[in-house]
Amino acid sequence: MRKHVVIIGGGFAGLYAAQSLRRANVDLTLIDRRNFHLFQPLLYQVATGGLSPADIASPLRGILARQKNVRVLQGEATQLDAARRRLRVGESWLNYDFLIVATGSKHHYFGNVQWAHAAPGLKTVEDALTMRRNVLSRFEQAERESDPRRRRALLTFVIVGGGPTGVELAGAVAELAKHTLKHNFRSIDPATAEIVLVEATDRVLSAYPPELSAKAEKSLQRLGATVHCDTLVKHVAEDHVVIARDDGETVVPTCCVLWAAGVTASRFGGRLAAAVGAETDGSGRIYVEGTLTLPGHKEIFVCGDLAHIEQEGQPLPGLAPVAMQQGAYAAKVIRNRLRGKTTPGFHYRDWGMMAVIGRAAAVAQIGPLRLGGFLAWVAWLFIHLINLVEFENRVSVLLQWGWNYITRNRSARIITNDQLLMQEITENRPLDRGDGDRRARSTSSSCQGPC
Amino acid sequence: MRKHVVIIGGGFAGLYAAQSLRRANVDLTLIDRRNFHLFQPLLYQVATGGLSPADIASPLRGILARQKNVRVLQGEATQLDAARRRLRVGESWLNYDFLIVATGSKHHYFGNVQWAHAAPGLKTVEDALTMRRNVLSRFEQAERESDPRRRRALLTFVIVGGGPTGVELAGAVAELAKHTLKHNFRSIDPATAEIVLVEATDRVLSAYPPELSAKAEKSLQRLGATVHCDTLVKHVAEDHVVIARDDGETVVPTCCVLWAAGVTASRFGGRLAAAVGAETDGSGRIYVEGTLTLPGHKEIFVCGDLAHIEQEGQPLPGLAPVAMQQGAYAAKVIRNRLRGKTTPGFHYRDWGMMAVIGRAAAVAQIGPLRLGGFLAWVAWLFIHLINLVEFENRVSVLLQWGWNYITRNRSARIITNDQLLMQEITENRPLDRGDGDRRARSTSSSCQGPC
Repeated sequence: MRKHVVIIGGGFAGLYAAQSLRRANVDLTLIDRRNFHLFQPLLYQVATGGLSPADIASPLRGILARQKNVRVLQGEATQLDAARRRLRVGESWLNYDFLIVATGSKHHYFGNVQWAHAAPGLKTVEDALTMRRNVLSRFEQAERESDPRRRRALLTFVIVGGGPTGVELAGAVAELAKHTLKHNFRSIDPATAEIVLVEATDRVLSAYPPELSAKAEKSLQRLGATVHCDTLVKHVAEDHVVIARDDGETVVPTCCVLWAAGVTASRFGGRLAAAVGAETDGSGRIYVEGTLTLPGHKEIFVCGDLAHIEQEGQPLPGLAPVAMQQGAYAAKVIRNRLRGKTTPGFHYRDWGMMAVIGRAAAVAQIGPLRLGGFLAWVAWLFIHLINLVEFENRVSVLLQWGWNYITRNRSARIITNDQLLMQEITENRPLDRGDGDRRARSTSSSCQGPC
Repeated sequence: MRKHVVIIGGGFAGLYAAQSLRRANVDLTLIDRRNFHLFQPLLYQVATGGLSPADIASPLRGILARQKNVRVLQGEATQLDAARRRLRVGESWLNYDFLIVATGSKHHYFGNVQWAHAAPGLKTVEDALTMRRNVLSRFEQAERESDPRRRRALLTFVIVGGGPTGVELAGAVAELAKHTLKHNFRSIDPATAEIVLVEATDRVLSAYPPELSAKAEKSLQRLGATVHCDTLVKHVAEDHVVIARDDGETVVPTCCVLWAAGVTASRFGGRLAAAVGAETDGSGRIYVEGTLTLPGHKEIFVCGDLAHIEQEGQPLPGLAPVAMQQGAYAAKVIRNRLRGKTTPGFHYRDWGMMAVIGRAAAVAQIGPLRLGGFLAWVAWLFIHLINLVEFENRVSVLLQWGWNYITRNRSARIITNDQLLMQEITENRPLDRGDGDRRARSTSSSCQGPC
């Protein structure tokens, strides 16, 4: 009887685990709520109109079509019965011999869930399209706005969190405002937009070497963005944020806050911890042993953003390369066990870190090398492209990149999925109504107050 | 004082009118609810996972960035005061000297609005993504389904309406099922899917010459689709449709109905007709004079799908070339009037009609030529590509087409915007709940009953 390996999550960890078990004598089931693998490191490009969702997403069934030992199941794992080694998906139970949990993380508002509406995060395709809609709509609203104070608020963009996502978002929004939208408006000059990056620690990219942080900050400033370090966000509303430093609090009028600050364990992570009584860290990540298994459950692996494992005294960061290596490692442990062999503990090989800031500017640390500027950007482009899963995605992204680079264009800057528009269209509402315009405005902007 | 021309709608008619007034001594305002021009003839490719929305959409501001005499306004025209020559947009009134109304059409259920949910139409980007989600989700559900009767219903796709959109949709869904999804599933064979095209008249593409209709029908049959002519849809439900022919009614179990049957005037069309007391035809289209103006209102033009004008005893069809020529014509009339000249009435130059059916098969009538098969497909591809507005769009679409052609892939087959998933993610719902799986299923499928 072949062993059954169940993998939850088709992100980097889950997909690499599945592919590494290609030739193993096991049956595999890969469960994901979505039907695609998402290349999350480029999600900020979707949020800022540079790429389309399908450019960075590949259908899981397509990727695994020819791997005969794997079955893909679109669904949500809702319950774990670790004692009987079974998992509830939809209406049925699935038995497993090995379970790989790679459900990742979601964004987190540090107990302020009420900020979610005014300050969307960036984890899913839908998040990215929401951000895109918010950013682009603010320029549209500013063009229609006559009050200069309100117009200023509409043209102020606050990015919370100075990690790679926050830095890349700030750079891309600055590019959009200063270059891409040039000549697009008649009443406003988009180049006057203010882009404010707020970071709680003393430097951006705090997980990178300090000199790269300094380079990133300089690149952002060159693009016209303002960086506030040692600064906390105290309050987020539809028309302003309150930021605090040692010397006091400041109210920043803004109608567009992008959240890139905190992550917490995915929902299934909580279920898993509760079901087996696993210990979690402050972000909900689950402490795993050296073989990425749960204490007392050698058959359950946790990989990727959901796993808490330390190396040289530091927890490994929630990055794609860590997830890929962990997924492949879990697969290796399973292959070895089936042959009665043991496996040395997981060791992350750090090939480097990078972040891109606007057009042809990036920072990178590759082994002993620390790059900035154009060279880092080319390295970044190259590494991201070879990691994009499907061939066609790569060519398409490369093409759009080349085009965007030459023209400073962002061709995917279309505002879609405006809920009100959709409703009106499908519901066939009566044609004439006095308050139509006002409602259309306030709802489509999802912004009250001065916006 | 320069005359002010207001154009409502950034589709083919409105955009061509604006561009044709590039060198005219007028101020232009182009109003659209969306921020982009949509290449509607390729929308069915978005609906079937071949292209991304941004591939067939170009931001209006980008297209018109360098045309200094035009201002783009994202908003909805809600009220017309024809006597004072002004238009309400948002909270303000806009005065005009000339008004070009090009707000197009929307789909229409012949008085059965309740069918809209089970049988989405195809007019907007959101419509296309809804269709894509429905089509792809049915295969996912079928893979999980054990009851063979339900599985059959999930793998039956009914397309209502045998015009170009219906024929192209049927061809694309057949391609998807028979070729693209090969090897993607383990419990079902997607090639067993049934694709049923229902047409009320005695042939598909009834506006085309009969021999092209016959070719199209043959192409569809070769792809495995079934064509029912002289057949009416009597009822649409979540899990079946009732179709009727002279010899009686048949119940077809299906969980996916795609609506490509009727169109009616856009909302503003109704407002316009009411405001000036204009006469409309059975589809709500407005009868215009030979110069595309309203009787009694020489300063108001109606162009594109919204206009009813006859040529050789037949009303002109709602096609992109008609809209383009009408938009350019209205601009010409305005230019002439400013110079005190008159313009002969509008005459549509018919360059031909075409429709594509699956991979490398199309039908086309170009002047005296009637093409079928690969040659028609190449002509179709060429004509559509040169008409796509932005350069980058063209290259990107050509590339995806080439890739799809070689591999039979449809790389944009990702299921997005699943409302329930989005809600759960943003609302941070409690982690464990007994009924989670069931709710996730029924809502994400937007299908009750056997689905």
